[in-house]
Amino acid sequence: MKIITVSREFGSGGRELGKRLADELGISYLDREIVTAIAEKSSLDEDYVERNIESGLLRMYPVTFSRTFMHMPLIVSGTPDILSQQHRVILELASRGDCVIVGRGADIILREYSPFNIFVYADMPAKVERCRKRADEDEKLSDRELEKRIKQIDKSRAENHNIFAESRWGDKCGYHLCVNTTGIEIKTMVPHVAAYAEKWFKQNA
Amino acid sequence: MKIITVSREFGSGGRELGKRLADELGISYLDREIVTAIAEKSSLDEDYVERNIESGLLRMYPVTFSRTFMHMPLIVSGTPDILSQQHRVILELASRGDCVIVGRGADIILREYSPFNIFVYADMPAKVERCRKRADEDEKLSDRELEKRIKQIDKSRAENHNIFAESRWGDKCGYHLCVNTTGIEIKTMVPHVAAYAEKWFKQNA
Repeated sequence: MKIITVSREFGSGGRELGKRLADELGISYLDREIVTAIAEKSSLDEDYVERNIESGLLRMYPVTFSRTFMHMPLIVSGTPDILSQQHRVILELASRGDCVIVGRGADIILREYSPFNIFVYADMPAKVERCRKRADEDEKLSDRELEKRIKQIDKSRAENHNIFAESRWGDKCGYHLCVNTTGIEIKTMVPHVAAYAEKWFKQNA
Repeated sequence: MKIITVSREFGSGGRELGKRLADELGISYLDREIVTAIAEKSSLDEDYVERNIESGLLRMYPVTFSRTFMHMPLIVSGTPDILSQQHRVILELASRGDCVIVGRGADIILREYSPFNIFVYADMPAKVERCRKRADEDEKLSDRELEKRIKQIDKSRAENHNIFAESRWGDKCGYHLCVNTTGIEIKTMVPHVAAYAEKWFKQNA
C-alpha cells in the first residue's frame, strides 16, 4: 500500500505539492472527503466540522488515544471529539488504498501503514508571498501580520503533533524527505518527488 | 554555475550520494583534490593535512574569516591554519566550474555562489549498520561504541558549522532538500535527486 503524508509549514505550498503528487501518481488525494465523512457520521454541518478541526483545539482530543495517554494535557470533558472522529475516518479511508493526505496528523495516525512522510517548508519571505497571493482581495494584511499568522498556525500544528509523536513536528528525523519550496515552482518538482517516492515504496514494501 | 553541497550525518551515506550525484550530472566531485591542493600550497604531507582537517579543531580556524568575527571562540595563535587554506582552496576550485562538494563547510564557504544544499541523514540503527559494513575487518566496535563515535563526529561537525553559519547544522532551513537514507539504496535514488537539483538550478540561475 502506498500512503504518502505531507506535513507542511503554513504558506509553504504543501497542499499544492500533495495534490499534484496524488495526480502524478494517479492515487487518491484525501482532503474534503475526510471532512465529509466526519460530518456524515456525526450528523454535523461540514463547515462546523472543518472549523473545529482547523482550530485544532487540544482540549477536544480524546483521552482514549492509545499509547500517549500519559502525555495528555488537560481534557475538558463533554466537548465533541471531532478530532477523534477524524482519526478514525483517516484510518478507514487510508485502508481503502493508495493515497496522499496533507496534514491532519496523518503521519502519526497512519504510522502502522509505514507511509512515506514528506515535510514541506520554506523561508518566511517565500511563505508570506505565497499567503499574499492566495489571500482574498479584501483581506489586506501587512507582511508582519501575515508572518504572525503563519507562526501562530505552525505553533498550533506543532503542539498538536508533539503530543502524540515521538519526534517533534518539522524535525527532519520524522520524515523521509524534506522539501524546501523557496524559489521553486512546485509543479515542476513534483515528478521528481513522485519518482523518488515510488522508488522508496519499492524498497520499503 | 551549478554547485551542489552535501552536508551529512556520519554514516548516513552522504559521501556516496555526493559522488554518485556528480557522476549522474557529469560534473566534478571535489574531495581528495582539496587535500592535494592544500598540501601543495603549504608543502605539507597530504595525510597530515587530512588528519588536521578531520580533527576539525576550532582553535585552528583563522580569525580572518569574514563576517563572523564576533562569533569566534578562543583562538590559539600560531597553530597552522589548514582550515583557512581549505577555505581558500574550496573557493578556488569551485570557481572553476560545476561541482559537488561533500562536507568541509562548503555550504557556508560557497554561499555567494548560491549552491544547491543537500542534507543527508538517517536513523541511528541505519547509520550504525552502514559504519559496520564500511569498517575494517580488524576494527571490532560494538554498536554502542559505533553510536558513540557517530555522535562525537556529528557533534564536532555541528560545532564547526555553527560558528560560521546563520542556521544550525542539520536544521532543514539551511538546506534545499533533506534526504533520509534509512531503508533506501542510495544509487537508485540519485537520478531523482539529480533531476530535482537540475530543475532547481533552472529556476535559481
